[in-house]
Amino acid sequence: MNASTSAAKATDITWHDGHVDRSHRETLLGQKGALLWLTGLSGSGKSTIAFHVEHALISRGVLAYVLDGDNIRHGLNSNLGFTADDRAENIRRIGEVGKLFVDTGVITVSSFVSPYRSDRDSVRSLLNTGDFFEVFINTPMTICEQRDPKGLYKKARTGEIPNFTGISAPYEEPTSPDLEILTENLSVDQAAGQIISLLERHNKISAVN
Amino acid sequence: MNASTSAAKATDITWHDGHVDRSHRETLLGQKGALLWLTGLSGSGKSTIAFHVEHALISRGVLAYVLDGDNIRHGLNSNLGFTADDRAENIRRIGEVGKLFVDTGVITVSSFVSPYRSDRDSVRSLLNTGDFFEVFINTPMTICEQRDPKGLYKKARTGEIPNFTGISAPYEEPTSPDLEILTENLSVDQAAGQIISLLERHNKISAVN
Repeated sequence: MNASTSAAKATDITWHDGHVDRSHRETLLGQKGALLWLTGLSGSGKSTIAFHVEHALISRGVLAYVLDGDNIRHGLNSNLGFTADDRAENIRRIGEVGKLFVDTGVITVSSFVSPYRSDRDSVRSLLNTGDFFEVFINTPMTICEQRDPKGLYKKARTGEIPNFTGISAPYEEPTSPDLEILTENLSVDQAAGQIISLLERHNKISAVN
Repeated sequence: MNASTSAAKATDITWHDGHVDRSHRETLLGQKGALLWLTGLSGSGKSTIAFHVEHALISRGVLAYVLDGDNIRHGLNSNLGFTADDRAENIRRIGEVGKLFVDTGVITVSSFVSPYRSDRDSVRSLLNTGDFFEVFINTPMTICEQRDPKGLYKKARTGEIPNFTGISAPYEEPTSPDLEILTENLSVDQAAGQIISLLERHNKISAVN
């Protein structure tokens, strides 16, 4: 920071001109911003894992935040429906918000089905290299449908919900995700642990002894 | 910060279920989230004051972030123009993002002309009472026009820019702002100081000895 005196009209203060940038916030927090983009079928465990990661990070003093349907679809994206255009715009806005969070220095975990490769790739291209991590929550469809926590698969099977990912609309699996979590034989804790290890490997957070 | 067990891969940990909420993040940060909504004419000094506040807060260890035209209009709201509907949607989205930032525990400073009372009131109603602060940056129009840092008033006077706030479009002054800063005889440092005092009075940040 340079000690310029430009901004103030008062004569007796020395003001440091330059703006704060991301690195100042990251130094303050002792961590580096990242957007972990969880993608997977409905019922695959994305949100459960996302909140588990958030909890684990906060518990060790790392500022983390989950973007999910609850705080996005009812807020920022409440004026979007489920047409192809609206779905793309939904993901775009989440990506842009994620970018602001990353600039703030926050470990940001997004939890959306995001079935289309092109949408996910668009988000990747919005962010700087090294800030975006595509995390494929890979849970067999049969398990997702058995769980069916919101009863959505049942409604999709009867046609009550059209264009349901995995049933009547495609899920395009990531071809080269930054992390693929095969959840079938993992506890939630283990799944979350893989994400936390990813953050450590990329020096986004300090490893815990 | 508490020394709770975290989500390591170890098998001997006790996991506390339940989600993180805003208060956990605020405890971690030692501050409380707030959205300071700066409104005022073009050239009134909003952004200068916003960045000054951000810098002062970061310097004392408070996590702060500025939402302004640079990071919003070129990103999240790049698909909005300047029709009445688009202007309202612009402000709505900023309010929704501000709400997410407040939930993260960040002191958030937004810097937009936001000339319409109804738009600003809509943002206020989005947030919880006590989280939103309307800050009127009150600088006489003659001074704003003299400064004209981006040459916008000149273009508005010649008609090159239509619907320019204060010239050919209304600026609806706040009727009961949470803070009104009469900038004319203040340094930037003094103006920023008034905002920081507001945050201290509302226990959003700790007072510095």
